[in-house]
Amino acid sequence: MAHINTNFVKLPGSYLFSEIARRVEAYTQENPDKKLIKLGIGDVTRPLAPAVIQAMHKAVEEMGTVQGFHGYGPEQGYEFLREAIARHDYQDRGVDIAAGEIFVSDGAKSDCGNIVDIFSVDNVVAVCDPVYPVYVDTNAMSGRAGEYDVRAGKWTELVYMPCTSENQFTPEIPSKKVDLIYLCFPNNPTGAVATREQLKAWVDYANRVGAVILFDSAYEAFITTPGIPHSIFEIEGARSCAVEFRSFSKTAGFTGARCAYTVIPKELERDGVSLNSLWNRRQCTKFNGVPYVTQRGAEAVYSPEGKRQVEETLAFYRENARVIREGLVAAGLTVSGGVDSPYIWAKTPDQMPSWDFFDRLLRQANVVTTPGAGFGPSGEGYIRLTAFGGAEATREAVARIRTIL
Amino acid sequence: MAHINTNFVKLPGSYLFSEIARRVEAYTQENPDKKLIKLGIGDVTRPLAPAVIQAMHKAVEEMGTVQGFHGYGPEQGYEFLREAIARHDYQDRGVDIAAGEIFVSDGAKSDCGNIVDIFSVDNVVAVCDPVYPVYVDTNAMSGRAGEYDVRAGKWTELVYMPCTSENQFTPEIPSKKVDLIYLCFPNNPTGAVATREQLKAWVDYANRVGAVILFDSAYEAFITTPGIPHSIFEIEGARSCAVEFRSFSKTAGFTGARCAYTVIPKELERDGVSLNSLWNRRQCTKFNGVPYVTQRGAEAVYSPEGKRQVEETLAFYRENARVIREGLVAAGLTVSGGVDSPYIWAKTPDQMPSWDFFDRLLRQANVVTTPGAGFGPSGEGYIRLTAFGGAEATREAVARIRTIL
Repeated sequence: MAHINTNFVKLPGSYLFSEIARRVEAYTQENPDKKLIKLGIGDVTRPLAPAVIQAMHKAVEEMGTVQGFHGYGPEQGYEFLREAIARHDYQDRGVDIAAGEIFVSDGAKSDCGNIVDIFSVDNVVAVCDPVYPVYVDTNAMSGRAGEYDVRAGKWTELVYMPCTSENQFTPEIPSKKVDLIYLCFPNNPTGAVATREQLKAWVDYANRVGAVILFDSAYEAFITTPGIPHSIFEIEGARSCAVEFRSFSKTAGFTGARCAYTVIPKELERDGVSLNSLWNRRQCTKFNGVPYVTQRGAEAVYSPEGKRQVEETLAFYRENARVIREGLVAAGLTVSGGVDSPYIWAKTPDQMPSWDFFDRLLRQANVVTTPGAGFGPSGEGYIRLTAFGGAEATREAVARIRTIL
Repeated sequence: MAHINTNFVKLPGSYLFSEIARRVEAYTQENPDKKLIKLGIGDVTRPLAPAVIQAMHKAVEEMGTVQGFHGYGPEQGYEFLREAIARHDYQDRGVDIAAGEIFVSDGAKSDCGNIVDIFSVDNVVAVCDPVYPVYVDTNAMSGRAGEYDVRAGKWTELVYMPCTSENQFTPEIPSKKVDLIYLCFPNNPTGAVATREQLKAWVDYANRVGAVILFDSAYEAFITTPGIPHSIFEIEGARSCAVEFRSFSKTAGFTGARCAYTVIPKELERDGVSLNSLWNRRQCTKFNGVPYVTQRGAEAVYSPEGKRQVEETLAFYRENARVIREGLVAAGLTVSGGVDSPYIWAKTPDQMPSWDFFDRLLRQANVVTTPGAGFGPSGEGYIRLTAFGGAEATREAVARIRTIL
């Protein structure tokens, strides 16, 4: 008799965004005339940059000819893209990362989820609380999380690092020794960023105890404040303790085009084995590379026109973030994030539970947000809004929220 | 201290196709003037069908507009594609499969590799020998294979089902009870197909002992012999014991475009849990869907023009298969496959080891093949050739092989 992976059965309820979709669907069924504005899920809305579109058309054209056809590409990504990433995202910014340390993939979600394959099930895992659910759920599925304690809203074997207004949403190094540390800056969901000094403390800790930092910098393109690191590899010592996940999703609107990458320095080793080689083996065995057309599109993000166009779109979203942030403050809410980040993290009024405030905003303002509690127990009492909507819709949503509060 | 997944370290040497690439590269370095013909790796060479190209252009166009832009799609694939697959690949052929049972992905390699996530580590796994290495390596990585016995060329905990000329390359039901059974028909690498009666025996066995059949039918489009099943779901009883993997790679030349799908019937359960729901949870947590542009391209495969164009390309490859098959027979080799399959499986002359014959063909005929030993111990003494080359190159390769033999 075949048996299932029983860790799956331990997962509580449905995935956060599925539950939101369910509630939104139910409300829409009951109220088909209401016009909802969705500032919940972190999905972009602006079209792909013209330079990207042009490059993709050209690549599609090639795929229709015998000479230009591309079959299986390298599992790690084409050299043209790995080189462009290494140069523009790292070397030109003075960060020492080579093309051979970059693995192109179909998404940071895939990479963040699949990275657990290369680590022992016995590692102790630390996550921020609130946290992007993928880090938690994938460790639960692979048996590193123990049991789910419904009352606490926590897994018994995970180490939670609370990020609340008391510590400016900045995790503290846990007292219990941990092996794998998930960090995400600019943070999803709180919108917090980390300073160089804060990241240095993590790198020093990881090097001291032999931990590995899994650093998600999917939102780095939103950073405008000078001095805030865009990459963990800007920190001295990170090459021997960190893996970095990045994505074209938020940087260049690739949520529907699917391209991301993971950076693993050559000297990063545990148990005497290179993690770069382990990930390479994982990818070569379970992945067959990103579509050629997509990779040509991603490459175009780094062309002079591409850079300019992408920057325009980022400015568009940053303006949305400002509108939301200032509007919610004017409505009397306590707000963080929204600077150096597309996410605005707002305290619910009168300590109202997250899902109640979510339902109230859905029903009274017809605005879809994300309940903070969905990101972990310390997210209770917060909601997340995203700056990825249209400009007018965002203004309208903020106006509606101000009206009902 | 973070520790690695030590199962990775047990994996022997490099992945088969990496080793081939290494030898080819070394030979090319030494002999830059030689013109190699590659009939080794199963990668297609014909361009994408015009209908597919047209659909992809249109989708790229949409992605460049506010109205037509698509962000995150459903993790399971867009309904338009799931519906098209269900209708054209199953329902129109009288097979009872619904859209909700289809999960669109970036590749059969990914799906075959990732499916192990939803099963217990304690399941006993049966594989054909020779076999597509991904089934073996992914089970080794996840701890189901035991230790690698270098002398035997086998993993201690896997159950190997020899497929040799003695049994017409058809696996027999193992005497030891097994839980997960990987079957691939038309077979990679041997090119063998399974009759309805043979598959019925497997389905009956699986239903009797509660095993799950993981059925890889990536090459079904090459079947021309009437009566040979294209899908495991043509067999009565399969809905309660089988998962099927399919791909647009070989059917429609998508090796560089990346689109595939996995079929899990709603009533397939183990330990009282639906495998469809487990896989859905896995995909929603670790995957973010296939690019919109790719899915529109895949949909076009089912249009009247798409079907006709794809059929032309398949005819082109089938003719290559015939040329290779008949040419090698004329050269005095014992050959199977090449009918209902793009793979030709040839016995080496005088019981020469596979890698020796591979090297001989590389050096003397400048033809790249795949050594059978790379697919498992029972592949020793064979080589695999593929029909995916150009027509002229294929004829030339066969002529060169005939000359040296």
